[in-house]
Amino acid sequence: MNLPFPSDLEIAQDAKLEPIAAVAARAGIPEERLEPYGKHVAKIELDATSGGTATGSKYVVVTAVTPTPLGEGKTATSVSLAQGMAARGRNAMLALRQPSMGPTFGIKGGTAGGGYSQVVPMEKLNLHLTGDFHAVTAAHNMLAAILDNHLHFGNELDIDERSITWRRVLDVNDRSLRDIVVGLGERTDGVTRQTGFDITSASEVMVILSLATSLNDLHERLARIVVGLTRSGEPVTARDLKADGAMSVILADAIKPNLMQTLEHTPALIHAGPFGNIATGNSSVVADYVGLEHADYVITEAGFGADMGAERFFNVKCRTSGLRPDAAVLVVTVRALKSHSGRYRIVPGQPLPEGMLSESPEDVQAGAANLRKHIDIVRSFGVSPVVAINAFPTDHESEHEAIRTIAAEEGVEVAVHRGVSQGGAGATDLADAVVRACDEPGRLTFTYGLNDPLTTKIEKVATEVYGADGVDLSPAAAQQLERYERLGFGRLPVVIAKTHLSLSSDPGLKGAPTGWRLPVREVRLAAGAGYVYALCGTIRTMPGLSRHPAAERIGFDESGNIQGLF
Amino acid sequence: MNLPFPSDLEIAQDAKLEPIAAVAARAGIPEERLEPYGKHVAKIELDATSGGTATGSKYVVVTAVTPTPLGEGKTATSVSLAQGMAARGRNAMLALRQPSMGPTFGIKGGTAGGGYSQVVPMEKLNLHLTGDFHAVTAAHNMLAAILDNHLHFGNELDIDERSITWRRVLDVNDRSLRDIVVGLGERTDGVTRQTGFDITSASEVMVILSLATSLNDLHERLARIVVGLTRSGEPVTARDLKADGAMSVILADAIKPNLMQTLEHTPALIHAGPFGNIATGNSSVVADYVGLEHADYVITEAGFGADMGAERFFNVKCRTSGLRPDAAVLVVTVRALKSHSGRYRIVPGQPLPEGMLSESPEDVQAGAANLRKHIDIVRSFGVSPVVAINAFPTDHESEHEAIRTIAAEEGVEVAVHRGVSQGGAGATDLADAVVRACDEPGRLTFTYGLNDPLTTKIEKVATEVYGADGVDLSPAAAQQLERYERLGFGRLPVVIAKTHLSLSSDPGLKGAPTGWRLPVREVRLAAGAGYVYALCGTIRTMPGLSRHPAAERIGFDESGNIQGLF
Repeated sequence: MNLPFPSDLEIAQDAKLEPIAAVAARAGIPEERLEPYGKHVAKIELDATSGGTATGSKYVVVTAVTPTPLGEGKTATSVSLAQGMAARGRNAMLALRQPSMGPTFGIKGGTAGGGYSQVVPMEKLNLHLTGDFHAVTAAHNMLAAILDNHLHFGNELDIDERSITWRRVLDVNDRSLRDIVVGLGERTDGVTRQTGFDITSASEVMVILSLATSLNDLHERLARIVVGLTRSGEPVTARDLKADGAMSVILADAIKPNLMQTLEHTPALIHAGPFGNIATGNSSVVADYVGLEHADYVITEAGFGADMGAERFFNVKCRTSGLRPDAAVLVVTVRALKSHSGRYRIVPGQPLPEGMLSESPEDVQAGAANLRKHIDIVRSFGVSPVVAINAFPTDHESEHEAIRTIAAEEGVEVAVHRGVSQGGAGATDLADAVVRACDEPGRLTFTYGLNDPLTTKIEKVATEVYGADGVDLSPAAAQQLERYERLGFGRLPVVIAKTHLSLSSDPGLKGAPTGWRLPVREVRLAAGAGYVYALCGTIRTMPGLSRHPAAERIGFDESGNIQGLF
Repeated sequence: MNLPFPSDLEIAQDAKLEPIAAVAARAGIPEERLEPYGKHVAKIELDATSGGTATGSKYVVVTAVTPTPLGEGKTATSVSLAQGMAARGRNAMLALRQPSMGPTFGIKGGTAGGGYSQVVPMEKLNLHLTGDFHAVTAAHNMLAAILDNHLHFGNELDIDERSITWRRVLDVNDRSLRDIVVGLGERTDGVTRQTGFDITSASEVMVILSLATSLNDLHERLARIVVGLTRSGEPVTARDLKADGAMSVILADAIKPNLMQTLEHTPALIHAGPFGNIATGNSSVVADYVGLEHADYVITEAGFGADMGAERFFNVKCRTSGLRPDAAVLVVTVRALKSHSGRYRIVPGQPLPEGMLSESPEDVQAGAANLRKHIDIVRSFGVSPVVAINAFPTDHESEHEAIRTIAAEEGVEVAVHRGVSQGGAGATDLADAVVRACDEPGRLTFTYGLNDPLTTKIEKVATEVYGADGVDLSPAAAQQLERYERLGFGRLPVVIAKTHLSLSSDPGLKGAPTGWRLPVREVRLAAGAGYVYALCGTIRTMPGLSRHPAAERIGFDESGNIQGLF
């Protein structure tokens, strides 16, 4: 690997793309369901009759061990796997989240995969795509405008202003909008109150887009959104404000999944992009339905490690969709397991710690507990795990061997993949391993039942998934849980917003921490999305720009190509 | 007209649309320049070699007499005329503004034309279309975020916070966002300051999109945007903040015009939608270029009456584009001239005043001064006027005759059209009149030269276009004009933001007021768009929702059709 490796953007811009109609045709998607958006993206009309039904197709979720702050290449592995499947002559389709545009101009750089395993055109993917995020922004802010307008015109519903939880959203990293006062100026300029903006991916409308099973279901979920409480403590919904119809009309196109392709022309459904911390962090249910209608293998991804994205994928998304996954790919890197040894501390934007790149299967072994715990988590849902080693040029064979040994000890499939440097040809072993895992019998089991009280649900996730000894509720959180039970939201599933950098709630604890308790500071309701979420710390829902953000470097070069995106 | 006339939405939803590729093919637009967005909308790639050059095609602008608050059907007349041209076998194309989405959910109802002269699909037109407005929002707010981030990280450029004029925008009617404080919260949440949101159509970025002659020119104009001043009084630009590259990348697709069709399949370019009061109120230059490349007659529209939209169309847009219009259609209605008699007062949302619908050619004659003055305005630019009587079912033949008489006295072409009730077949006389007018020789002359001082430019528009006796500058306005001259912006053209409901600055003065002076309260700079604008009163740049906005009635009906849009 001494040759200079081209950048992701260079590889993506050099790619020869297929017309999207050709990609769709190969995938068996009928032309009358295709709405092209430019030459290389199309929306797919939903088929009212499809969804949820058993098709014989296999459904694979890609998750990971607890990542380092750099990420372990879950999207790159998903793309590699799909390309590897195709290289083996299998009919595979990807179903991934759409990246948020805001962070593209911050420090992030987009989530198209990497190297020779990317979804293209990456400029479309990381910018507006077909406008779904903008539609979510518009629908969300329509509700906010109607809510403030209701207060302005006399507050007929008797909303307690201090109880309002519905903020506004924009798909931009704008720290100054986190905490604002609106309604200043003249009497005609609305009611003065304190509120703020979140980034669009943190919008409950985005989660609704990802979880809705149809346009009707989308509408019903929008109508159920709770924006605050009346002065007598009753929930006020979007339906009470008569905002649900307008919101669903604004989202009429956004509910249709977007079809793109990988660098090797494997079809990729890109749809919805809810936050991975306070929200479910999964791509859309309807995209999975479309995929399972047409492909033999649908590969989707769940945000962060298996404790976070995959837990919600199983307990929330699969419960909603009625779909049962056949295998879960656990992405692991040498770097991540070395960091779980507790011997190294990785800081984004700084070089890797000294010694981390030297050959050390011992360091890998010392971090094994994290991988073992994630294997256990996947198995607790009745799903077959496959360990996927995302190979880096700096890895040593002995280190891969150490991971293989751990997997063998756990009795799970394992494969190294080099999809980033080799594309699908580098991921055929992984494809074979996943195919074998999909043939193992399984039965999806949930961590909790919907009839469990909310507190029990949180406790079960904390103890049975995370490995905590128990949960410590703040007085406020206990009160909120009690209130949500009383208001009739007790049958909702839960989402727990903790750090993704540890199985515990302390990002500094590596490996598989034991002897700790999960502190729940606050509990909030996402009645439209359909869950209650527990906050374990301060979660930032509007990122900021850095001192010299990527935006300063993004522009057109002399030939009119976009530069600086990565 | 005793049969119940179907609603605009019913007519539009009943329409049989042509595939957009067929519309483009008939218009001679090569397929490789077409980027379909769904089945009935396409973007057109710009051809770097085209633009500005003489083609022999005719360029027609549709303007109007001073409208009533109800509007006089300028868009409906534009669509009727294009359809009438096509009915006469002529190769015509429309170039219109994209309506703003926000007001669709307020009280407005969209601007697709009306009856059998509409641009379709009207749901697309009035909602996101291809996302250009959202891209403008994103580019505008990216600059705002970078600006506030610059203040947060130490304000290296030494920006005087109190001088900042760059606000944020959203395409929603949200009164509560007009006047806000941002940057509350923690130290990491930015610098606290007072600012606000405008509606997206009021964004300078929207004007830039409408005036840019190419992607390069777009970038240059974005770079020249002035957001405020340094503490030593120097302008701070988007280029100083290194935001211009990112903004132009965000707008890379938005600069491409959108192709749609009328109910009779006449091609319609829909592109950009700047406000008609503080901004230029015209559709894009690049759409006109594309139209003139392919059609024999390009019909575009300028907002409000000839004193407003058309004055800016000539003095600002045509000066920028280098295009010379061959004719200007002056839309007039019986209702408008009756209101200019000063005998009736029309209030939106209330029934027309008693007696206004009775036959009265005398009332029409009594309002003739307004029409005569608008004919003079058009002629002052060296362009041939055509009076287009937009016929209403409640009109009387004698009233149309009265208008014909006025036009004959002025020596201009005149035609009645019934495009709203009859489509193109009702507008063939108008088409013929426009064709004749286009054959008259003309030479575009501007009201002022770019070397005139800013104050002189404002005075010339006020006296020579509006008919004022002179201009009264407030001390603040005089100071601002002096400052803009000093800072090197003296060679820019001007836009005057006054009421559109009178030729004067007093909306109550009907007809052709004389003996009045134009009061200029404040002057602002739009350095990127390329003009200085003078405010004559308080101009609202963020609408509000009404007590029971259209949003409450918008939704899907049982068959999945959008209802409540009109």
